[in-house]
Amino acid sequence: MSQYCSLDQLRFLLYEVFNVGELFKYERYQDHDVENFDILLDSIKDWSDKQLYPFFREMDEKPAYFEDGKVFTHPQIKTIFKEAGENGWLGQQLDYDHGGVQLPIIVNNAFNHIMEAANNHVPGYLGLTVGSAHLITTFGTKELQEKYVPNMLAGKWAGTMCLTEPQAGSSLSDVKTSAAPQKDGTYLIKGHKIFISGGDQQATDNFVHLVLARIDGAPAGTKGISLFVVPKYIESQDGDMQYNDVETAGDFQKLGQRGYSTVHLVFGDNNQCKGWLVGEANLGLKQMFQMMNGARIDVGLTAASVATAAYYASLQYAKERPQGRKLNSEGEKDASSEQVLIINHPDVKRMLFLQKAIAEGSLSLLLECSKYYDISTAATGEERQDAHLLLELLTPIAKTYPSEKGKIAVDNGLQVLGGYGYCSEFVLQQYYRDIRIMSIYEGTTGIQSLDLLGRKVPMKNGKALQLLMDKINQVVKEAETIEGLKPYAAIMTKRLADVQEVLMSLMPFAMKQEYEKYLADANLFMELSGILVIGYQWLRMAVIADKALKNPQRRFDSSFYEDKIHLMKFYFKYEMPKINALKHSLLNQDFLTIVENDAVF
Amino acid sequence: MSQYCSLDQLRFLLYEVFNVGELFKYERYQDHDVENFDILLDSIKDWSDKQLYPFFREMDEKPAYFEDGKVFTHPQIKTIFKEAGENGWLGQQLDYDHGGVQLPIIVNNAFNHIMEAANNHVPGYLGLTVGSAHLITTFGTKELQEKYVPNMLAGKWAGTMCLTEPQAGSSLSDVKTSAAPQKDGTYLIKGHKIFISGGDQQATDNFVHLVLARIDGAPAGTKGISLFVVPKYIESQDGDMQYNDVETAGDFQKLGQRGYSTVHLVFGDNNQCKGWLVGEANLGLKQMFQMMNGARIDVGLTAASVATAAYYASLQYAKERPQGRKLNSEGEKDASSEQVLIINHPDVKRMLFLQKAIAEGSLSLLLECSKYYDISTAATGEERQDAHLLLELLTPIAKTYPSEKGKIAVDNGLQVLGGYGYCSEFVLQQYYRDIRIMSIYEGTTGIQSLDLLGRKVPMKNGKALQLLMDKINQVVKEAETIEGLKPYAAIMTKRLADVQEVLMSLMPFAMKQEYEKYLADANLFMELSGILVIGYQWLRMAVIADKALKNPQRRFDSSFYEDKIHLMKFYFKYEMPKINALKHSLLNQDFLTIVENDAVF
Repeated sequence: MSQYCSLDQLRFLLYEVFNVGELFKYERYQDHDVENFDILLDSIKDWSDKQLYPFFREMDEKPAYFEDGKVFTHPQIKTIFKEAGENGWLGQQLDYDHGGVQLPIIVNNAFNHIMEAANNHVPGYLGLTVGSAHLITTFGTKELQEKYVPNMLAGKWAGTMCLTEPQAGSSLSDVKTSAAPQKDGTYLIKGHKIFISGGDQQATDNFVHLVLARIDGAPAGTKGISLFVVPKYIESQDGDMQYNDVETAGDFQKLGQRGYSTVHLVFGDNNQCKGWLVGEANLGLKQMFQMMNGARIDVGLTAASVATAAYYASLQYAKERPQGRKLNSEGEKDASSEQVLIINHPDVKRMLFLQKAIAEGSLSLLLECSKYYDISTAATGEERQDAHLLLELLTPIAKTYPSEKGKIAVDNGLQVLGGYGYCSEFVLQQYYRDIRIMSIYEGTTGIQSLDLLGRKVPMKNGKALQLLMDKINQVVKEAETIEGLKPYAAIMTKRLADVQEVLMSLMPFAMKQEYEKYLADANLFMELSGILVIGYQWLRMAVIADKALKNPQRRFDSSFYEDKIHLMKFYFKYEMPKINALKHSLLNQDFLTIVENDAVF
Repeated sequence: MSQYCSLDQLRFLLYEVFNVGELFKYERYQDHDVENFDILLDSIKDWSDKQLYPFFREMDEKPAYFEDGKVFTHPQIKTIFKEAGENGWLGQQLDYDHGGVQLPIIVNNAFNHIMEAANNHVPGYLGLTVGSAHLITTFGTKELQEKYVPNMLAGKWAGTMCLTEPQAGSSLSDVKTSAAPQKDGTYLIKGHKIFISGGDQQATDNFVHLVLARIDGAPAGTKGISLFVVPKYIESQDGDMQYNDVETAGDFQKLGQRGYSTVHLVFGDNNQCKGWLVGEANLGLKQMFQMMNGARIDVGLTAASVATAAYYASLQYAKERPQGRKLNSEGEKDASSEQVLIINHPDVKRMLFLQKAIAEGSLSLLLECSKYYDISTAATGEERQDAHLLLELLTPIAKTYPSEKGKIAVDNGLQVLGGYGYCSEFVLQQYYRDIRIMSIYEGTTGIQSLDLLGRKVPMKNGKALQLLMDKINQVVKEAETIEGLKPYAAIMTKRLADVQEVLMSLMPFAMKQEYEKYLADANLFMELSGILVIGYQWLRMAVIADKALKNPQRRFDSSFYEDKIHLMKFYFKYEMPKINALKHSLLNQDFLTIVENDAVF
């Protein structure tokens, strides 16, 4: 069994960096304890070793396919749904009343990280099922909840989110799928949905599709979209399953994540597809955003997990492969000496450290977001609001940084193997293909960047950004008290000033209502923010590592903590300066991308 | 037929930027004229439209495979070898005496660009054949030349270069393949070679392998390597083809370039493999570098060509796909209005411009290198020497920039298509996979970076670098005389100073013989150099475009030249600032990648 993630790193983050024990003070989490988390971490890892990782290559080599109106996936998906359900691992974060155990999301996401690193083709099936169930428990009627949620959490029925349509893509205001009200209170659903992850497979008995559609006569745009539960089969009172006119029209063949089906669904081609409204009419998109925000965090987490697995795969190769020699003081190599392991070459080390810095920094950010989610769920008053604002601000970054920089991490992992990295015999090329979707899923990087700069930064007069700055400054202050970390605290202070400078230069455009100019380089602002926020993760890890090194009761060997400080220095040397370059580009007010259609081609 | 390259762009570069007519003053090229180049450009494009481009997707979907000791490739490869040979397109750059027409390489590489953009799985077969033939004409005996070269240039026999061995990878000093001298003057060759591009296929009747091997008793390391011609079949005087004990052991299945075979060859497993020494014993690696340097340029050119083709594919999509709307002055979108084509979104424009800036900048650099090659072949004295030095210095950059930044370009191309970009139905995912090998072929980016900083920069006391600086400063001076370009000239001057500053900070390590420190961040120096040198390409293109705009006799519409100036500005806004960040990292003398084996993991 190759290593694909590190439980030590997870424990360090959960217990030392994010101190999950703090959450037990909230009534919601009072029944939990760290010992139990620890046992679960090991159980999930053992299970992933047995049920997920061994099928990872196979799911790529024998991808999901469409035949006779059905999508077939790897048979192991059935076992996984079944066992995850039986083990009680689906929806642990839900309320006791809804079949969950109120597990903090930060812990749940630590579990997800293990599963995603083991086999990123699989957790989406489970995650969408839980997300759909959660959406029903939040907005659905008691009847809908009782009808669907127990079977979903048991792993018997799968859930999906159906947003994208062929003509609309990312533009949800153009959703056309229609919902015609019927006398019995249900709706007749009609329309095409594409790119539906897990939208068909033969592993579960039923599908509970959560569909965005427009009730006849609803307003144009996003304000006329409603949310529906549309099962593939309707269960009658005597348990018969009646087909609900949800047809599978095809499965998209993809560059990667080939074990994870991506389906084209046709609702109501025979005018017999029934849907049930969830929550309020015309508030569908807003409600869907509960699931969407969760899914964005999941995508970021999957990207971080793929990057982690790729890192360990390339590390293993670098530790085993002899090639080349060190230069002697004449700048030459002694050909009669033994070759060295490639891990000894500085450039290979650079590629390994870069991967690790990106992967672990990303994981840390995702767990920070998860903790804000937990606090925003359990706390009250200002504490709740602040956590919610921080989560809102950080979500697009936590989705995008791991997706974009994760590609670079895996690219470096592949490069460590040289020619072998490009060969199908080695796994790196699979990670390289798998991770590429993450910057597209659930809103592309372009969409996330507009969300960050266009909505989240100005939100509540910049309150969320101010809260984040406060958090970062708090870590800077701690770092300033530690001799060895002072220079890095100083760098962070400068980079924070860079962000302010960029915003000061952009804000006038927003105030003059020149939104196109304000947002033209949102992508660069996103990249800058991501580098900054991951720098903050590393500075905090270094502060905590420094404290642990001074504490004889530390959990891990001193080398574990020394490594964190080293990686922080690496990140500050190689990644943080990029903020300066991005600032430079952002301060340049020559709006070269706002030009006529046919110019410059 | 989709567009995959631009003949206008090629003509602009050949005739206006690099003024190929200048070459006719050399005796070597005196028989050529521009009109003939023009006709050939059109012929090669027509042929590529018919014989290369239509098979591009198919070669990926039905990759080369190994069966019964043979490698099978797409049957079209046979037609291509045959027609390229019959058309006289193989080895046009060779001397008249050797079957060529002394075509300038700059023109030959313009042809290659078209073919590589049309179908990058194919030109390698032809390029290696010509490169091998050229190696034989340069160093081989008259007998070897007569025996092999005519059949190679006719497209009947294929050539390959056999360097890599399983235990050695990039470390050529560890080549083990042996060559035992025989009484008849030949050698018995024995050993394994892997990753042999085009090393087997069923399209040609024979293979002429150029093999690095060690004559019994030769010194260790690279100083004991000799070069051999090892045919797969030996032609007897009566024309019989006798098997020469060159066995195909397998074909590597790869992430991309799946139509291009990558073969494991076993020489002399039955002790009956004959080889003929090429040139001098123990000078094999030095001689092979003639072909290697050409191959490095070819790889860079292929990368630039893939990036070009990917750009046009994404541009076409962006011009056809409606999605989303412009923001109005309230920062909102009017859902009742028509959707706009995605090319209207600034972020999509940014992704398109970035691709174009990388692809065209790379192509320009590769043609500049080609021109230096032509001058270094045809000129005499200092002119010849200077051109050679510039070529030596620029080769690792011209191989690496298009390979590394080309990945980013294609990544952006895929992103333009959103979810469709990730689907096998669209071609972008294929370009994404294909281009990934370029930073590995013929020396990885790590190796190229050591070559640049470790060998080329210090070469002749920095003479080559000084020559390059002079070239750049010449363009800066021209730009300074043009009002609209002055600011960009000023930026270039500053960035040149950055390079000097970095070298001043690194040089002391080389002088103290601390080579590991000197070279630890060679990769970053490579990236910095690449960005600078492509900036110089763009500044020159802008200068020339500005002149053309003032000239009523200009070749193209004014919009063509305006676009060049716009793209230069884009490059200077978005790419040039990265030099500053890299400088920052390079000036940091905390050598974090020089650490003990097991640290930081």
